Amino acid sequence: MPKSFSTLRINPARLFDSFSALSLIGATGDGGVNRPALSEAHLAARDWFCAEAESAGLDFHVDGAGNHSAVLTCQPSNLQTLLLGSHLDSVSNGGRFDGALGVAVALEVLKTIKENGINLKFDLEAIDFTDEEGTLVGLLGSSALAGRLHPEALKNPRGGRQNLLEGLARAGLSEAGIFTAARPKESLAGYLELHIEQGKRLERMGIDIGIVSAIVGIRSYRLGFIGRADHAGSTLMTDRVDASLGASAFTLAAREIVMGDFPGCVVNVGRMDFAPGAFNIVPARVDLSLEFRSPDEEQFEKMDTALMACAKEQVTRFDLGLEIECFEKHAPNAMTAKVQQVFADSCEDLGLTHVSLASGAIHDGQSFDGVCPIGMIFVPSVDGASHAPREFTKWEDCVNGANVLLQTVLRLGRG
Amino acid sequence: MPKSFSTLRINPARLFDSFSALSLIGATGDGGVNRPALSEAHLAARDWFCAEAESAGLDFHVDGAGNHSAVLTCQPSNLQTLLLGSHLDSVSNGGRFDGALGVAVALEVLKTIKENGINLKFDLEAIDFTDEEGTLVGLLGSSALAGRLHPEALKNPRGGRQNLLEGLARAGLSEAGIFTAARPKESLAGYLELHIEQGKRLERMGIDIGIVSAIVGIRSYRLGFIGRADHAGSTLMTDRVDASLGASAFTLAAREIVMGDFPGCVVNVGRMDFAPGAFNIVPARVDLSLEFRSPDEEQFEKMDTALMACAKEQVTRFDLGLEIECFEKHAPNAMTAKVQQVFADSCEDLGLTHVSLASGAIHDGQSFDGVCPIGMIFVPSVDGASHAPREFTKWEDCVNGANVLLQTVLRLGRG
Repeated sequence: MPKSFSTLRINPARLFDSFSALSLIGATGDGGVNRPALSEAHLAARDWFCAEAESAGLDFHVDGAGNHSAVLTCQPSNLQTLLLGSHLDSVSNGGRFDGALGVAVALEVLKTIKENGINLKFDLEAIDFTDEEGTLVGLLGSSALAGRLHPEALKNPRGGRQNLLEGLARAGLSEAGIFTAARPKESLAGYLELHIEQGKRLERMGIDIGIVSAIVGIRSYRLGFIGRADHAGSTLMTDRVDASLGASAFTLAAREIVMGDFPGCVVNVGRMDFAPGAFNIVPARVDLSLEFRSPDEEQFEKMDTALMACAKEQVTRFDLGLEIECFEKHAPNAMTAKVQQVFADSCEDLGLTHVSLASGAIHDGQSFDGVCPIGMIFVPSVDGASHAPREFTKWEDCVNGANVLLQTVLRLGRG
Repeated sequence: MPKSFSTLRINPARLFDSFSALSLIGATGDGGVNRPALSEAHLAARDWFCAEAESAGLDFHVDGAGNHSAVLTCQPSNLQTLLLGSHLDSVSNGGRFDGALGVAVALEVLKTIKENGINLKFDLEAIDFTDEEGTLVGLLGSSALAGRLHPEALKNPRGGRQNLLEGLARAGLSEAGIFTAARPKESLAGYLELHIEQGKRLERMGIDIGIVSAIVGIRSYRLGFIGRADHAGSTLMTDRVDASLGASAFTLAAREIVMGDFPGCVVNVGRMDFAPGAFNIVPARVDLSLEFRSPDEEQFEKMDTALMACAKEQVTRFDLGLEIECFEKHAPNAMTAKVQQVFADSCEDLGLTHVSLASGAIHDGQSFDGVCPIGMIFVPSVDGASHAPREFTKWEDCVNGANVLLQTVLRLGRG
């Protein structure tokens, strides 16, 4: 790469102003933002995106899935586009960095390349994907663009059908229109994303940049522990068939199993619903929301088997019934080896320390597995905080990540 | 007691017809009834009560708390009334015996005594107390009549203030009027109740009648286990502060403590509320609904201390915070010794087996502790079922119980 390119840097002051303005949209006053997908606050953030694109002289367009794009046409002869993206939606009362930083950095990379008049072998597109967080469907925009969205996913979405329809109406979108966002894979040069780590590994190791090796697979189940409702005063302890015991014992045992036998994996019991749910009635049923993740498919299968065996063991122990309902199965997605290497080269060139790690969270990048090259970098999260107002990344780390993304785009586009 | 009185029996066919008609009101089609306090179905059951009283030539009145009474004046010179009662309200989708059987039996006892022209030394009053089950407040009618209702209890009732106001309006009652139901203790000769056991003890022992020694005390707490919300994918297992662990460990340990160290007592974790309650977020908080009961005050205190120490131990173990909120404290209530003895004498005379046992459930009788003599008998519950449509008591057991109540009234009223 010519010397002039390797010394190119983004404009930190411009990025700071841009990101600061974005952080005010849907701000909750405690450092966080509340911008669920297609809410009024999210749509206001998309107005910011549109204004940013126009003031930078970038082409702007919105597809049928509501994905917002700012495009820099590098050469009229280019047949492919390199997507640089993330998302402007947040979880309910989330942080201001998750997704938003990646979108602001993507725009800044395009601005830097445009103002330096650099022609790459692909066009560049900064993109804000619709509903990454899953308030409505999850990875809605990226899976639609990648041609991976199943109509079934819109029938019974995790946020409820009514919320989806209301969100689409608010954004002027239609259900049928979402599928028109699909692009031919030949048109995609790749997808790159900068994101906060959402964990403590980089901070603990004192490393500048995480180069994502794989995005974990996720499985989620609803486990129904079935007991019998009885009067909680007049029924002897020995006569009870208490669903809470199986659910509680499973919760403790699942953690032991994963921590003991599945290093690098995680398990979460995020919710229990008790029925009938009264102080004075023995629980007839507890529905437990279970999720677990692994970056490795084989390990994933073994963990699944071990956890289901554990659930069966606990219901036998407490004389309960068990109903197992699978909600979600995402296989792990490996990031493209070549892109990981170019990220590493860029870090070396910038004098930044880097480490390869798996992403425990899902990201839009996984929608492009098998469609085009994918790459992702993490910047450190202070105290690992995520999906909360206290989520924070030091400004120096944000700038470092932006420069790694810029350098990687240049290396890939001139290579 | 004269021979003619000791051979007096209730009319089983008349009781059967009466109770069968009552069971149809609010029937859910599966053997149960749905008659929450002051619901339309409950008010319809009270119309049945009114018609029963009138057709039997008993005086009928309703007090300011909505308690329905059928009165048999035995002698114009009587200054006291013996109350025979129970309640016609049910839990949501409850059984047809709980409360209703006691009211039908009380009416049958009055009919039998009236048709035999027997003069007792007190008047008799069959009474249907308002809201025993606590859909609105709990023991509302009996505590109002006993002069024990605190205005505070109506401010934030367990069923919600709105439900209470709507129920009162439906029944033509007023909040201020409830307190006018209070009677001078000098006017009360006592309170007797027949109820189903709601447990398996009598059935298991093969005994006809349970003579209640005490009604258990109840304490209920909301225990808040406080952790920290984190991303359930990107946060390492060792970095989590997971509220579900404390709540689960407490649930298992509380059962061990009560079964091991507090015989005859019970504990229930009837509900847990997870916040934020998502598959993919480590639980920041679990609010656990805890209730425990003991018939003995000293044992009760020890159990309370042991359970609270257990909660503290679990939060220390998992590095959580703890918030303790006490919801309810009912002390145990002993039944009057003399009344228990007369119940036993009546059983002996009728050739029925009997046993002394504590009531694990609360009942209107406890409102009269310290006000007047109280007595209560149980008839066996098949399989111990309670608060459920499968609740059932054999007809022979219902008739036996009714005759024990009749004989006890005669013995107390002639003695």
